[in-house]
Formats: sequence, structure tokens, C-alpha cells
Amino acid sequence: MPMEIKKYKKEAEYSYTLGAFPTLELVDAMPGKVTEVLVHSSFPEMEMIAEKCGKIPVRQDNKLIEKLSDKENVYVVGIFMKYPCEIEKDFRHIVLVNPSNMGNLGTIIRTACGFGYYDLAVIEPAADIFNPKTVRASMGSLFRIRHEQFESFEAYLSKYGDTQRKLYPFMLDGSCLLADAPKPEDEHFSLIFGNEATGLPKEFSGYGCPVRIEQTEFVDSLNLTIAAGIGMYEFAQK
Amino acid sequence: MPMEIKKYKKEAEYSYTLGAFPTLELVDAMPGKVTEVLVHSSFPEMEMIAEKCGKIPVRQDNKLIEKLSDKENVYVVGIFMKYPCEIEKDFRHIVLVNPSNMGNLGTIIRTACGFGYYDLAVIEPAADIFNPKTVRASMGSLFRIRHEQFESFEAYLSKYGDTQRKLYPFMLDGSCLLADAPKPEDEHFSLIFGNEATGLPKEFSGYGCPVRIEQTEFVDSLNLTIAAGIGMYEFAQK
Repeated sequence: MPMEIKKYKKEAEYSYTLGAFPTLELVDAMPGKVTEVLVHSSFPEMEMIAEKCGKIPVRQDNKLIEKLSDKENVYVVGIFMKYPCEIEKDFRHIVLVNPSNMGNLGTIIRTACGFGYYDLAVIEPAADIFNPKTVRASMGSLFRIRHEQFESFEAYLSKYGDTQRKLYPFMLDGSCLLADAPKPEDEHFSLIFGNEATGLPKEFSGYGCPVRIEQTEFVDSLNLTIAAGIGMYEFAQK
Repeated sequence: MPMEIKKYKKEAEYSYTLGAFPTLELVDAMPGKVTEVLVHSSFPEMEMIAEKCGKIPVRQDNKLIEKLSDKENVYVVGIFMKYPCEIEKDFRHIVLVNPSNMGNLGTIIRTACGFGYYDLAVIEPAADIFNPKTVRASMGSLFRIRHEQFESFEAYLSKYGDTQRKLYPFMLDGSCLLADAPKPEDEHFSLIFGNEATGLPKEFSGYGCPVRIEQTEFVDSLNLTIAAGIGMYEFAQK
């Protein structure tokens, strides 16, 4: 019996992808979580979608697509059940402390996936990682990574902050320039970024090696997604 | 006689900043272009604004602010006359080929300003650089840089592409990894980025040193603003 699909709510047990590309990423990475795929009658490649979906039900439903997508140009929607996940303790982590914007959260996930960071810790309160806006900004990369929510940074540390793990909080007044920061010798490290408006709280300067990205006096700070992208890029270099 | 201010149109001779921070940047960097500054009655620091504005007229007008800002939380608006400008031939340039999104254009301007790139060439068709959305995404950095529009990349080259200038088009299949790209020895270089959806046309691989940013197979490409941020960061390093 198919469930009735409504516009996304945070409390819902399901969410959805908007657009062909993120839907194909979903189907490829998390096929077991997809309940159905909706295709608009004006989408020209229905057969390609059906083939990629295999046993996942595919059906035409213009009305539902328009309802879910706010009448943006969306032709393919994938409905999926939300899933719990945990990050891996032996890999490099991205830690986002109180990210508030879903577009930024999704963009950071896409960049992380592009640079080989597959474990994301999110410290609450935070933007909803399963919201369709986050999923869309991630271009479906969300389904390629592991992610875990924490009530506080201390909760993250008590689960994953063993003595091996090196912490790199990114701060405007970090003591170490990014280019000069001593790079970790293995995968036990965490790049930590703060909220869009407020950055990381002061006390983070007491953790590990606080890093700053050199910039001119003409900007207040870099955009969070840019700072995170540059940090991930630099730490992905040998 | 004050002119009547209407919602922004591309053809208008004026535009405006939305928000206290970009307005203060405008007043600081381009005081001669500001015709007036509007402050909302619920803004607590009216006096600070008036002091920064010096001889620029400052007045309260809640209704006009609400009209111009689409009822977002905006308390300060700066009205300014658009101005022509030219870039400098002896400095490093950012060249954006057909950027289509105003938020992205503004974010790239903010990043450029943060890394000391003060000359921006924009190849048309392109998002409107003076649109309030671009200005806002730039956080007012637009007023700190020089910018110039060109009908085509060839038009840019024929004006600024002397033999000294090194060109670095950023392409997914660029022959040179960003980290290994031979860095320019002086300021005569241009970092070139394509459109959000399509990147740079193929023929750009024939210009200078085409650069690629290494990434995993799990993403189609990086977001344009992230790629541009990483490129600017890398080329700003000694």
C-alpha cells in the first residue's frame, strides 16, 4: 500500500530528491531506501530512469511533482525513507558546528564528497540534513557520505576524540596559517567549521591546532562554504 | 530634488545595498556615488550610520525599505548611482565567462576581495553585477574592486591579453593539476572560470595553462564559487 506523500516536514519519516541528477545518485547509492521514483510526463528520458531504478517502482505523477517542487523546473523526484547512520572512527571527519543554512550544508557535503571526506559530524542545533533543499544543494552527494548528529561538540569528542585524532578548528584568529599548519600523517583528523554568522565559539581555540585562512582587511570573513572548501582542499593535498 | 526610488531594474541608473554592512562598505568605498541612505525606525544605531555617512543624506523611510527589500529583515539601504569602471592592466585578473547566478557572482566577488584580486572581467551574457542580489551576496565587496564587462573573451584578450599575461582557464579536464600548475612570477595573470552549469567551452583548453582541481569520481564537479575560491586561494599563496 503506497503511503500518501506530502510536502516535506522535519518530523516525517521520508524525504525526497528534486531533479534527475540527485535522484540517480540516490538510486545508485541507497537503492534499499527508495520507495518510489516519480517522473513528469514531459521528461524525455523515462526509460533511462526506469532502467537505472531496476526493481524500484517508477510512475508518472505530474501533480505530485509540482506540489513537492514548488513549481520549479523539476521532472524527476525520488521518495526515500530517512535512515540513521554513524560515522567511522578511523577516517577523516568534517565537523560542522551549528550550520544554519540548508543550501550551505548541502554545498559543503558536495565539496566534502569531491575531496574524499566521507564522514560528517553535525553539531546541533543545525539545519536539517534530510530536507529536500539540503539534498538538492548536495546534488545527491548526501547519499555517498556517512553523517551523524551530536547534541554538543563534547558529545562528538567523547565518542570520536581519541588521543590519535588531530583537531583543526577554523577560526578567524587561528594561531596557525592554513598553508603552514602541520598536516596530519594519517586519516585521524577533523576539520571543524562554525556557524555562518558567528563562526566557532572562542573556546575552540583551546582544541588542537586552530587554523586561519589568510585574507585581506577588505572582507569581514569568507563565506562558510568557501572557507570549508579551501580547508578541505588544502588538507586533501599530500 | 530627490528622485523617486523604485524596485531595481537592470536599465535603471541607480541600484541599492540591502543591509547595514554592505551599506557601510558602499559609503566607505564609494561615498561620491551614494545619493542617500535609508534607515528603518527600528534600527538601533541610527546615529552611528549618520556619523559614517558624513554629508550623505540619511533619512527614515520604513515603507520604502520594505518595498525595496521584499520584506526581508533589512534595516539599512544605500541608494547609489551605477558607475562605469575599467580594470587595471598590470594586476592579476579574475575572468568570469557567462556567470548566470547573481548570488554566485556576488560570492565570488567577496572571495576575490578577500584574497587580493581587485580586477574582475565579466564576459557577457552574464548576471547583472549591480543587481541588489549580487551586491548583497558580495557583502559590499563589489565597491572595493574594479570590474569591466566584455562582449566576448576575445574582446577581453584584445584589450588586456598582452604577451606578458599568463592565462589559467579552470576546466574539468585541464592538463595541469592546480597544486602543480607553474605559478606566475608577477601580477600579470588571469584566472578564468566558466558558467555554473556548462563550465568553460572546450576551446579554452587552447589558452595558456588549463588547470584542473583534483576530485573524486563521486561528484560531477565542484560548485563554481568553491572552485573559484580554491583557485584564488592557491594562486594567492607565495
